[in-house]
Amino acid sequence: MNPLKEALKIKDQIIAWRRDFHMHPELGYEEERTSKIVEEHLKEWGYRTKRVGTGIIADIGKEGKTVALRADMDALPVQEENDVPYKSRVPGKMHACGHDAHTAMLLGASKIIAEHKEELPNKVRLIFQPAEEGGNGALKMIEDGALKGVDAIFGLHVWMELPSGIVGIREGPFMAGVGRFDIEIEGKGGHGASPHETIDPVPIAAQVILAFQTIISRNLNPLESGVVSVGTIKAGEAFNVIPERVYMNGTYRFFTQETKKLIEKRIEEVLKGIVIANNASYKLKIEEVAPPTINDSSMASLTKRVAQKLGLKVEEVPKSMGSEDFSFYLQKVPGAFIALGIRNEEKRIIYPHHHPKFNVDEEVLPLGTALEVGLAFEIV
Amino acid sequence: MNPLKEALKIKDQIIAWRRDFHMHPELGYEEERTSKIVEEHLKEWGYRTKRVGTGIIADIGKEGKTVALRADMDALPVQEENDVPYKSRVPGKMHACGHDAHTAMLLGASKIIAEHKEELPNKVRLIFQPAEEGGNGALKMIEDGALKGVDAIFGLHVWMELPSGIVGIREGPFMAGVGRFDIEIEGKGGHGASPHETIDPVPIAAQVILAFQTIISRNLNPLESGVVSVGTIKAGEAFNVIPERVYMNGTYRFFTQETKKLIEKRIEEVLKGIVIANNASYKLKIEEVAPPTINDSSMASLTKRVAQKLGLKVEEVPKSMGSEDFSFYLQKVPGAFIALGIRNEEKRIIYPHHHPKFNVDEEVLPLGTALEVGLAFEIV
Amino acid sequence: MNPLKEALKIKDQIIAWRRDFHMHPELGYEEERTSKIVEEHLKEWGYRTKRVGTGIIADIGKEGKTVALRADMDALPVQEENDVPYKSRVPGKMHACGHDAHTAMLLGASKIIAEHKEELPNKVRLIFQPAEEGGNGALKMIEDGALKGVDAIFGLHVWMELPSGIVGIREGPFMAGVGRFDIEIEGKGGHGASPHETIDPVPIAAQVILAFQTIISRNLNPLESGVVSVGTIKAGEAFNVIPERVYMNGTYRFFTQETKKLIEKRIEEVLKGIVIANNASYKLKIEEVAPPTINDSSMASLTKRVAQKLGLKVEEVPKSMGSEDFSFYLQKVPGAFIALGIRNEEKRIIYPHHHPKFNVDEEVLPLGTALEVGLAFEIV
Amino acid sequence: MNPLKEALKIKDQIIAWRRDFHMHPELGYEEERTSKIVEEHLKEWGYRTKRVGTGIIADIGKEGKTVALRADMDALPVQEENDVPYKSRVPGKMHACGHDAHTAMLLGASKIIAEHKEELPNKVRLIFQPAEEGGNGALKMIEDGALKGVDAIFGLHVWMELPSGIVGIREGPFMAGVGRFDIEIEGKGGHGASPHETIDPVPIAAQVILAFQTIISRNLNPLESGVVSVGTIKAGEAFNVIPERVYMNGTYRFFTQETKKLIEKRIEEVLKGIVIANNASYKLKIEEVAPPTINDSSMASLTKRVAQKLGLKVEEVPKSMGSEDFSFYLQKVPGAFIALGIRNEEKRIIYPHHHPKFNVDEEVLPLGTALEVGLAFEIV
Repeated sequence: MNPLKEALKIKDQIIAWRRDFHMHPELGYEEERTSKIVEEHLKEWGYRTKRVGTGIIADIGKEGKTVALRADMDALPVQEENDVPYKSRVPGKMHACGHDAHTAMLLGASKIIAEHKEELPNKVRLIFQPAEEGGNGALKMIEDGALKGVDAIFGLHVWMELPSGIVGIREGPFMAGVGRFDIEIEGKGGHGASPHETIDPVPIAAQVILAFQTIISRNLNPLESGVVSVGTIKAGEAFNVIPERVYMNGTYRFFTQETKKLIEKRIEEVLKGIVIANNASYKLKIEEVAPPTINDSSMASLTKRVAQKLGLKVEEVPKSMGSEDFSFYLQKVPGAFIALGIRNEEKRIIYPHHHPKFNVDEEVLPLGTALEVGLAFEIV
Repeated sequence: MNPLKEALKIKDQIIAWRRDFHMHPELGYEEERTSKIVEEHLKEWGYRTKRVGTGIIADIGKEGKTVALRADMDALPVQEENDVPYKSRVPGKMHACGHDAHTAMLLGASKIIAEHKEELPNKVRLIFQPAEEGGNGALKMIEDGALKGVDAIFGLHVWMELPSGIVGIREGPFMAGVGRFDIEIEGKGGHGASPHETIDPVPIAAQVILAFQTIISRNLNPLESGVVSVGTIKAGEAFNVIPERVYMNGTYRFFTQETKKLIEKRIEEVLKGIVIANNASYKLKIEEVAPPTINDSSMASLTKRVAQKLGLKVEEVPKSMGSEDFSFYLQKVPGAFIALGIRNEEKRIIYPHHHPKFNVDEEVLPLGTALEVGLAFEIV
Repeated sequence: MNPLKEALKIKDQIIAWRRDFHMHPELGYEEERTSKIVEEHLKEWGYRTKRVGTGIIADIGKEGKTVALRADMDALPVQEENDVPYKSRVPGKMHACGHDAHTAMLLGASKIIAEHKEELPNKVRLIFQPAEEGGNGALKMIEDGALKGVDAIFGLHVWMELPSGIVGIREGPFMAGVGRFDIEIEGKGGHGASPHETIDPVPIAAQVILAFQTIISRNLNPLESGVVSVGTIKAGEAFNVIPERVYMNGTYRFFTQETKKLIEKRIEEVLKGIVIANNASYKLKIEEVAPPTINDSSMASLTKRVAQKLGLKVEEVPKSMGSEDFSFYLQKVPGAFIALGIRNEEKRIIYPHHHPKFNVDEEVLPLGTALEVGLAFEIV
Repeated sequence: MNPLKEALKIKDQIIAWRRDFHMHPELGYEEERTSKIVEEHLKEWGYRTKRVGTGIIADIGKEGKTVALRADMDALPVQEENDVPYKSRVPGKMHACGHDAHTAMLLGASKIIAEHKEELPNKVRLIFQPAEEGGNGALKMIEDGALKGVDAIFGLHVWMELPSGIVGIREGPFMAGVGRFDIEIEGKGGHGASPHETIDPVPIAAQVILAFQTIISRNLNPLESGVVSVGTIKAGEAFNVIPERVYMNGTYRFFTQETKKLIEKRIEEVLKGIVIANNASYKLKIEEVAPPTINDSSMASLTKRVAQKLGLKVEEVPKSMGSEDFSFYLQKVPGAFIALGIRNEEKRIIYPHHHPKFNVDEEVLPLGTALEVGLAFEIV
């Protein structure tokens, strides 16, 4: 069986699925329609399926190791600006990150796998996951047993930074881990004309924000990557009143536990010291939202081998400061998160992920399907 | 005629008025009840009255110069915490700055003046003004002719920083001028993980806030007084998104035109330079809200003389960074703004202006009335 | 005896003395020539003199209270740029603060007092003091008994901010107290390419410097006066090496103990907190150099009375952030430090104290002498 | 001919050379003794030599392409703290970066190459370079023709971060480019008590230093590497005088032209904007000291192949923020800069480059020699 040949045979079907999902985007944990369609197909094709909210776990095959393939299904609160026949029909919602393509490609792979289940050297586990965008749907799936018995896991993401059709693979850290901090600096409010009777939290916050810059510029190894960004700041309600408190929150990014710990430690130290310097006080909540996405070396190599065997062009994809909840699966099970190039200048498919004009070069859909089939048939 | 003797005669009446006003506080430009009561009395006593919204201009006398006496009538959005029989009956509103006392004292003075109008060497103009607290009611009164023909003006303010009964007088600058600035720093928003694709306005704002400190610490003559306070700051809506803009506003204070201009110039220079340094842009609205309250030297001396003649104890009152819209009258006409001590430790009348437990030692009310009558009868 | 008439009689002599001292400036504690000349005259005129290093204490009179008059004698390390016949003959040294005039005026007064010693109602103590400029010569004189038995003390300072001949008097705080801080911030040095292996003290120092600004802008009452200035900063020796330490020193100024303590407390708190925030350490030496110069109210009034009796024009002189070691005398004994105007636009006597073109309008010298004589004859 | 076998034969000789150089360290451009020894040997072995100051260019071979091999010869101003028989005999100078080993290894290679010159498929150019440490000796050599006719160039550096004997190779950017900035911020000096009469450059410098942190934390792509470090800062001479100027210098690091330009642009923008914000002025000198060391891909591959053929263990060596003037050769000619591991825990050879206890595991010297011989005989 040649996975690519098989995939090309059902190319139109895959594209049709993708367009259908694209027209009917559903936000995280609301993927009712999408999951219903997926589940019906899987059942039809002989999969043993299990519902986890709007997610689906589906199994096929009897022997060998268990290879999991994962697609995410949720859309984004973005108003589509593409002028295409299959434009989103839901105002304010759009598949602006390609999860429609992920679902369609895996659906195609599921069909092919099912058709060739007798030749399967592995058991195959399909994971159709909700809420990747900020909802950490992966965690939910894992809690409900998605990784039970799984020996290896693979996920595909369409990738605007790579030319159409290129398979981007990276060993080790690929996408960043992400954390969130929430800070409250409490001074002592008072009249704007009498700063000496207050502890003005505004210049304290300013000092903290500038000191945060040194975490990256001074404390982090310049050969490592990390980010600390303040996303919101809020204080006060009247121009002539010194506020009691400043609220801030923000995000931090990292590829290693060492960097994560360094940033978390320094955020607290900086905040604490500056607050002490000003006789103020603080509250800090700081926690990881998702770990870095770290590909297993041998799984990445295997992916490369499979892709090349299919005749696909493979490149090493650079690291990304973006994050991906596929990282939670990779914490538990060896596997690889794989980029699939979709950039096509001629077709004006150039807009970044989450952009209202984001689109996918549909020519790549059968390639992704083929790669997933290939992996399902590989001995891990 | 002895003003003090006359005032003491109607002491109970003055206190009754004050308590009535205290029980029925009205915010700026809503002084309907208060002004109605005042106007009825004034008409009854023979004043020629004119309405200016909720303000009243009233005249008496035919010859000589025109001496104006001003009281403000508005209350504050404060929930009273005093446990007194005449406690505010309006939830969330309170005469927490003593304007009830100002109105009552001037009403008492109006009565005495009217009773002795034949002996008056001056024409007397009464100004019962709305909206001193943030509404610049004084400006409105002036626009509507309150100072037309006026040769001198006097205003009284109860003063917690002085012991009960002391008359506080200061030549020259007494209360600060106040200004307001509104700032928008516009950078370029983006993903919290990709600061390099943005112009992050948050650290820019932090730099601006810290640089503002140097206006007072480095640019202002240490022998002068000035304040620059940021009252509110607001940016961003999501922890992992670098915001497009930071909004800030704040107040500045000054006693001289030189300081005012220095602060305004430096706020813009600092903002502009730091914004340029970061390839961002800014909007700045900066304007005086009220000028400093500057007492005329000879009017201050005259007040002192009148007070001493009445047997009142007089002290030089220190400058205050607070502001007062009486300053607008003093820009046009020589006069004096006079403090009347109300602090009384025994009676626990110690809470600062605007405090929920602020109160007035009512023993001083006839003293204020007497001083106003005395000034009305003085040749300016 | 009319002190002014007497002083005008010896005007040429006073000017000659002043020019002689001017041509032979001597730095602090090196006033050998000056003090020799002074002492010889005093002995000749019948004073009981005592040497204190290069200082002189001299007494005359037998009865009544003891009135002390003080002049400082030291010059400055400034290269004179005036083109006058009596220009400094010592390269790099100059009487650029008028101590030559102080010495000459008091020498004149000493002569007159001695000539009229029989009429003296007081004992008179002359204090010719070394090292006012940074040497705290006053302290030395006090240690050696200069104030023993003294009931009142007066000192005169020529004053460029006042027009020639005006006597400037101020009750209470007149000149600022001064303190000095020395800071060492110790981080951990290392290669400029590897900030993460260091604790870079340079941005820490920058944070401290900016936080110091808030001591004045936020912590100090805007109606009070205070200064915190960093005078020197030094760190590192190579462009590509992160230094181990930053050294800074600076000065602070104040008029009250409250302000002094506030500044000292805040300097340490700010330094400590920011250093803690960065896992660095610090050393701080902070101490008062001289207290504020605070004139006794009744001595200031007495001075005013004496000056007016002599027909001199008196003004209230504004406070000055400058400091003066006469403050040490005033800590022990009531007295007054008096300004004597020397500004004369026509004569181009306009350059500030310590400027290479500083000069004194010599017409005022007999006025100063007369005032000193007047004070010596006043019952304190 | 087996290069490794040949090298091991003269191992004692190579070690003896290295120890001799180690005992007689010479700073940059003072390598008289070292270069004399080298030159004598090269002449003796039949090389055509040319002197370039204390550097030597030497040629051998007649046909084929020209392969250059480079060693640097200068020592450091470090006081050695190793207790070895061959300890530096020059107080305050030490081969603390292994250039003694580089010279000895290449001398060994020169000997072997000369002995086998008949078999040489290439012409070989030896470059014994002075002043790598801060002197940019490479530039000097290039100016004097060291690269004339050269087709490929290789340089070896002993490497403490790699275990003894490992050959560390990296394609593309390997060591950082380095730049230097010199800044003068000119304000307006004055008395420490009168900040308002000055433009205090100290808080301006503090603002600049903190704003520099944002170049790395906000402006640079977090996936790129860069450094901006202030190395020295100096201002003022007296604690109570606000200085006229602040001097600062520092270093910046980069791997790409894009990063270099970004940092240089931002340093000037930040400086300019903040100086404008404060009505001060600035001077900035900013320039590249050395470019990044960027290995040619095919030359790096070739090196790997040669090393493996010799039986040496090869690893990919991580990038380093350190810099190396070999980069100048690589700007002109394809080649590779190669790391040779020397870390040996058992022998306590663990101290970093430039450390007083830095040492080299001499067992690796013949390996380096063999690799150089191997490269000389390779068809590039």
